[in-house]
Amino acid sequence: MKKINARATGVSRFAYDGLDRVIHERARLSLLTSLITHPTGLMFGDLKQLCALTDGNLSRHLQVLEEAKLVVIVKGLKLNRPQTLCRITSLGRRRFIEYLAVLEQVILDADAAVKAGAGTPAKGGQNPARA
Amino acid sequence: MKKINARATGVSRFAYDGLDRVIHERARLSLLTSLITHPTGLMFGDLKQLCALTDGNLSRHLQVLEEAKLVVIVKGLKLNRPQTLCRITSLGRRRFIEYLAVLEQVILDADAAVKAGAGTPAKGGQNPARA
Repeated sequence: MKKINARATGVSRFAYDGLDRVIHERARLSLLTSLITHPTGLMFGDLKQLCALTDGNLSRHLQVLEEAKLVVIVKGLKLNRPQTLCRITSLGRRRFIEYLAVLEQVILDADAAVKAGAGTPAKGGQNPARA
Repeated sequence: MKKINARATGVSRFAYDGLDRVIHERARLSLLTSLITHPTGLMFGDLKQLCALTDGNLSRHLQVLEEAKLVVIVKGLKLNRPQTLCRITSLGRRRFIEYLAVLEQVILDADAAVKAGAGTPAKGGQNPARA
């Protein structure tokens, strides 16, 4: 096994600090992708369907995003029926674009390894002393 | 606001079911990217540094990946000192590549919206009844 130089350089090459946990969680990533694709906003019911979330999960994740000021939630009435509109904010859009750049780096890093055919992965145990 | 046709088509367009939670968690995503990039394996200490994890976090996340059979962990001795080698398995490589394809779809979906200049995001509240 080739010794890597991580310790020598002190670089945490694959740490991906930019993968903000508020955004990275799967349901919230799904919500933000829906909302950036519909910048004028989406109704609660449509968002629920697009992201395949339950009412409870959708409410919970929207609350996290709202507290982080990444989305706004506006309650109103239409034909006397309650309506909830969700939209991505300017900050949400900016933060999500920054997050996507880090995600692209993950894919570039992994794809480079995959395309280099770097993979003759482990089939069974091997004593590291013999590596 | 334009009405979307999610309900009519029943399609959960942005659900991204393929974002397997075992892989998607940030530290584990970091670990798998490191390991697919080093298919002959990485020592515990190098992995810790590359991913900027503590001993405890690294052990915990490696255990999750090992239980899912995505990595193998081999303990041995080198010059009488204990050594722990971690490697991605064939299954781990396959599952990670599948995961990356879904991740690419997220980026494509979001980038399409960003590049279309689709974003005149919300600045303040707006009554959905007037949308």
